[in-house]
Amino acid sequence: MADVVASLRASAPLVHCLTNVVVSQFTANVLLAVGAAPAMVHSAEEAGALARVAGGVLVNLGTVTSVTAQAMRVAVKEAAGAGQPWVLDPVAVGTLPWRTGLAHELLESAPPTVIRGNASEILALDGGTGGRGVDSTDTPEAALTAATALARRYGCAVAVSGPEDVLTDGMRVVRLANGHPLLALVTGTGCSLGAVVAACTAVTGDTLLAAAAATGLLTVAAEEAAARSVGPGTFAVTLIDELDGLSPERLAVSLNLR
Amino acid sequence: MADVVASLRASAPLVHCLTNVVVSQFTANVLLAVGAAPAMVHSAEEAGALARVAGGVLVNLGTVTSVTAQAMRVAVKEAAGAGQPWVLDPVAVGTLPWRTGLAHELLESAPPTVIRGNASEILALDGGTGGRGVDSTDTPEAALTAATALARRYGCAVAVSGPEDVLTDGMRVVRLANGHPLLALVTGTGCSLGAVVAACTAVTGDTLLAAAAATGLLTVAAEEAAARSVGPGTFAVTLIDELDGLSPERLAVSLNLR
Amino acid sequence: MADVVASLRASAPLVHCLTNVVVSQFTANVLLAVGAAPAMVHSAEEAGALARVAGGVLVNLGTVTSVTAQAMRVAVKEAAGAGQPWVLDPVAVGTLPWRTGLAHELLESAPPTVIRGNASEILALDGGTGGRGVDSTDTPEAALTAATALARRYGCAVAVSGPEDVLTDGMRVVRLANGHPLLALVTGTGCSLGAVVAACTAVTGDTLLAAAAATGLLTVAAEEAAARSVGPGTFAVTLIDELDGLSPERLAVSLNLR
Repeated sequence: MADVVASLRASAPLVHCLTNVVVSQFTANVLLAVGAAPAMVHSAEEAGALARVAGGVLVNLGTVTSVTAQAMRVAVKEAAGAGQPWVLDPVAVGTLPWRTGLAHELLESAPPTVIRGNASEILALDGGTGGRGVDSTDTPEAALTAATALARRYGCAVAVSGPEDVLTDGMRVVRLANGHPLLALVTGTGCSLGAVVAACTAVTGDTLLAAAAATGLLTVAAEEAAARSVGPGTFAVTLIDELDGLSPERLAVSLNLR
Repeated sequence: MADVVASLRASAPLVHCLTNVVVSQFTANVLLAVGAAPAMVHSAEEAGALARVAGGVLVNLGTVTSVTAQAMRVAVKEAAGAGQPWVLDPVAVGTLPWRTGLAHELLESAPPTVIRGNASEILALDGGTGGRGVDSTDTPEAALTAATALARRYGCAVAVSGPEDVLTDGMRVVRLANGHPLLALVTGTGCSLGAVVAACTAVTGDTLLAAAAATGLLTVAAEEAAARSVGPGTFAVTLIDELDGLSPERLAVSLNLR
Repeated sequence: MADVVASLRASAPLVHCLTNVVVSQFTANVLLAVGAAPAMVHSAEEAGALARVAGGVLVNLGTVTSVTAQAMRVAVKEAAGAGQPWVLDPVAVGTLPWRTGLAHELLESAPPTVIRGNASEILALDGGTGGRGVDSTDTPEAALTAATALARRYGCAVAVSGPEDVLTDGMRVVRLANGHPLLALVTGTGCSLGAVVAACTAVTGDTLLAAAAATGLLTVAAEEAAARSVGPGTFAVTLIDELDGLSPERLAVSLNLR
């Protein structure tokens, strides 16, 4: 995982984000802090051209509309055609039927490299009923069976975020117990994790390793940031500083693998 | 007002925001800091489903387009049908004719729970001529007659924001003199107040009390934040910390009711 | 340049930004910090009405869609018709063919007051091949011939941003060597420079001076902010404080003109 982070900082992959308007700025700053180069293009006229040349593509359904859904369809198709990895963040799937249909349509059009969501979203994507808006009402461990089924169905890795993160590629399982409760009080921390996962898929072909390295990087940086923060305002700022400053060596010794 | 804030923190209501792209991130972080759960969905396909289950709905006209206007129409109709409160923030109404028409259309389709705006916007909504963009060129006190008329017409509360906040439900009037000039140097402080009002309408049926509690919470936190800030950059960050940390008891002793 | 900044703070011009969703919040806060009044309206229904009364209009192509492109066409036409200055920020022109066509269409519809971009974007706008996403793969000095050609063609100023900024109106050339590497690690610093340029065009008819004053203001503030920052997170916050606090006198002595 430390090697993936070192590669990320060395190669500065271009990450094309089709993400929601709430977290766009924070996500771009997180990507810059970890050493990647963010690009955000939301139109069907342009999403394909960028997806073909990006090192990784993120599709986050947070504020999807019929206009941006069309850009997502194009980006996924072109990324897959060019052999580029793409990551799905199924925000609020299960709660909202329209985007649930869109998520399945995208998954069927081209298998994703990684799916990153909270437990309720992963359960819903596998046929469950969903949480409450963007909040999870289930634990990651409870979603492991669903995550494994999705991973095997699409040949991808699935990262279930929560107090303890659970990740699988359908064969192996990784559990990470880093992080801090303040992550839940800052909008976009989960969404930016999806973007960092996309960045990591650009530098390693091991999809589970990419997802785990991204998760470790964000959650270890969160621990360091929390120690220097007064509340969620300063935490969001300090987290960017820590993501920028965290060395692969320090990451390696701080990881809490279960 | 302190009791409303205590209820807010205890119940974490889901607040559906149809707000502008400039302030979405800040608004979400403000809602998280006060203890609410933000959700932002802008498509006509989904806005209704979320509005029916949300504790409160915010409609902010800041960057409305024909696409998001349709989502607003659906959200207001579904919120009203489900008996959920909705809050209108008539950004730049009066200055821009198209959205002025939309504001009136939404108000006629279902009476709002609270209208929150600056003095120029409230005057314009009652038939006046508007300010300059998002700036008010009038004082809240000058808008009290218009606010009272709107409150009686729609059976709602009206909160007029400014150096001294003036609020009315058409019968009672509340004046609050908390706050700080730095609030005017950070984008989204007024818009996020609208979101906190929506959160408070989810925990009390007294609409004037909801609007006053939200206003008191934001403006008292602003005073505390200003004391720890160098300029508007640090103030925006510190404000989130203070909103997270402000206890109902401390709010009660800091309120400056006139 | 110090006089322009003093005028800016004294007159608080309304700046209408048609900009991308990633940087909207940061851009608005930068404009407030330098003393301008930001307004962001993206719909074709309203962009013209606001452009006619704004002191300056910014068109930034970052996340343009077919919907916002139409608002840009209207805003440029109405600004030009009313004699108001407008600034083009040709984000990722050259890399993405659709927006490259749009940029040329806007330039032909009404000559801009200033064009602000990185070296790759300026080269591409003059017929070159573009960089990588939002990153420049060329130096500003290498783009001077292209910048001069564009300035003469449209009778405007052209500001090429980079480690050393190069600006020209086709006759005179200004080189500014202020700034800090942290500017490249925060999303929206270049885009917000375009907005500050638009603000400065509202207070002086000398377009090269407007572009140079805006560039000096942002890059000198960046130096002060970097000295007080831990990393890119704190730098983004501190930059706003410094923009708010920087006096015209201090700007004058800190400028590093070449």
